[in-house]
Amino acid sequence: MNTSGKAVTCWAAIAWKKNSPLSIEEVQVEPPKAGEVRIKMISSGICGSDDHVLKGTFPVKFPLIPGHEGAGIVESIGDKVSSVKPGDKVLTLIIPQCRECNSCLHRKGNFCEKQDVLPSSGLMLDGTSRFTCKGKSIYHSFRVSTFTEYSVVPEIAVAKIDDAAPMDKVCLISCGVPTGYGAAVQSAKVTPGSTCVIFGLGGVGSAIVMGCKASGASRIIGVDINEKKFSQARALGVTDCLNPRKLKKPVQEVVMEMTGVGVDFAFEAVGLVDTMTAAWESCNKSYGVCLIVGLASPESQLSLEAAKIITGKTLKGVCLGASVVCCCSEA
Amino acid sequence: MNTSGKAVTCWAAIAWKKNSPLSIEEVQVEPPKAGEVRIKMISSGICGSDDHVLKGTFPVKFPLIPGHEGAGIVESIGDKVSSVKPGDKVLTLIIPQCRECNSCLHRKGNFCEKQDVLPSSGLMLDGTSRFTCKGKSIYHSFRVSTFTEYSVVPEIAVAKIDDAAPMDKVCLISCGVPTGYGAAVQSAKVTPGSTCVIFGLGGVGSAIVMGCKASGASRIIGVDINEKKFSQARALGVTDCLNPRKLKKPVQEVVMEMTGVGVDFAFEAVGLVDTMTAAWESCNKSYGVCLIVGLASPESQLSLEAAKIITGKTLKGVCLGASVVCCCSEA
Repeated sequence: MNTSGKAVTCWAAIAWKKNSPLSIEEVQVEPPKAGEVRIKMISSGICGSDDHVLKGTFPVKFPLIPGHEGAGIVESIGDKVSSVKPGDKVLTLIIPQCRECNSCLHRKGNFCEKQDVLPSSGLMLDGTSRFTCKGKSIYHSFRVSTFTEYSVVPEIAVAKIDDAAPMDKVCLISCGVPTGYGAAVQSAKVTPGSTCVIFGLGGVGSAIVMGCKASGASRIIGVDINEKKFSQARALGVTDCLNPRKLKKPVQEVVMEMTGVGVDFAFEAVGLVDTMTAAWESCNKSYGVCLIVGLASPESQLSLEAAKIITGKTLKGVCLGASVVCCCSEA
Repeated sequence: MNTSGKAVTCWAAIAWKKNSPLSIEEVQVEPPKAGEVRIKMISSGICGSDDHVLKGTFPVKFPLIPGHEGAGIVESIGDKVSSVKPGDKVLTLIIPQCRECNSCLHRKGNFCEKQDVLPSSGLMLDGTSRFTCKGKSIYHSFRVSTFTEYSVVPEIAVAKIDDAAPMDKVCLISCGVPTGYGAAVQSAKVTPGSTCVIFGLGGVGSAIVMGCKASGASRIIGVDINEKKFSQARALGVTDCLNPRKLKKPVQEVVMEMTGVGVDFAFEAVGLVDTMTAAWESCNKSYGVCLIVGLASPESQLSLEAAKIITGKTLKGVCLGASVVCCCSEA
């Protein structure tokens, strides 16, 4: 059935309010407007940031269809869309690439000004939603809701992928894997023989481990309160696992003792100021680099001892692994 | 008169306690022990950090002989000193270069573990002082007191300079100039055509301006509450001068409006968390780099909005302009 140009009725998971179970509902998904793409979602990852959204620690508008780490097939396109066509396999991008704004045009920028994360309007670029449920307008999640059978997404927030891509797994390449791997390889530029510590061994943290390993790090310390992640982490390259809840002193002190001088590179992939502080204080004071990868609550403040910054440390934020995604078909 | 091996009696400025006028006193300066050098000081700069010390915002032990930005002539050397000899012209180094510690041996480290700034013992490496006044032991300032006719300094904290160096001016090369110029050129690596803002237009800030200008920055915004510095700043390359006390809104908001997107590089050369915050918030959120050059009080905390770090900003501390000083005679 050709659904192009018509609203599609399908199933989606809706969060009617924060801190409540997702509800599977029948929703109407409008056709894409100019510069937009409607996607039949095939798979979606569940990211820590989705969890922050649902728990209310990251402010968004409810009700919304969550999710941002998706893989799907273009069902129809709006006017002026040229980079993808119906039938193309695509990924959704939590940070779009408009290729026109100051950030996109800058050699080192990747936080496109058309993003909808900080702050989050929950609406498409024209200020409206494409989702309704029971007659009520439903907000989008970062303009790339993926917990739905169909989603409408700005063209600048889709990346065409290879026709042979395995659609049940490739969604992870949409956010978690580049976020972590890129943080290590592109942003930190982890050096051979270096010592690294990663706080949080979930999807993003695992990708960081892979990036550190691929860069030749000689020691990779993994930190998590869930020890079930440790065997997988070791398989990926972690050399030492630490559970802060089982330590008698702050984990940063343990890392400092283990390394003698602190690590070359510390990564925070949790999104909490306590783990950010621990990552910062795990770094060598003269040359350590602390990468902030986790998305913190907007109210939270990271407090650093001001005098000790001058000794030479670096604190660096990175989103999507500093990736610049090519969304044009010729790329 | 050959003074080698004997205590020298000379004049020095002593701070008997914090927040009190310096007192010119007759002091005894012991001969240098092994690995030490006694210097006849010819000139000394007055650095913002000396002001912090004297006002008590940076913790040191009193009574002390302040100053760290000195130029002088080696009067005598202790055992095992090989890099300088009596008669050599030298500069003092607030951060030594032992060439043996983890930081000195690291490609990107310059905060030598033998430093005496954070924390500050006020004593030589063997834990004793070389100064006495009225029978009382006097503390050293960062192991390189310079407000004295003679000073004893570790060999690793002196850099031999050219015999033709003008001794009345070259002291500024000991700290202020490399601290600022190096922060721009070596640490930030300011790019051609970039926009920069410098908080504090004193000696260090002026050297930052020179580094930004030499690197080809196209716009250099200078911020200071003392407008007397503005004409000199403009002569060095500042294109726009701002006095925060005359603005109707926070200076970072004005910088954001002036630039539209924030600066590429922000430098803090004051040592206060308020100016550090202003520098951080003046940076472009996607690619801005904020250099912390000023020495803050150890109790002060720099508080950053945690969620906004992830957009791609960098906070980087730098001491002595990331310089690695060659102190061996063959350099």
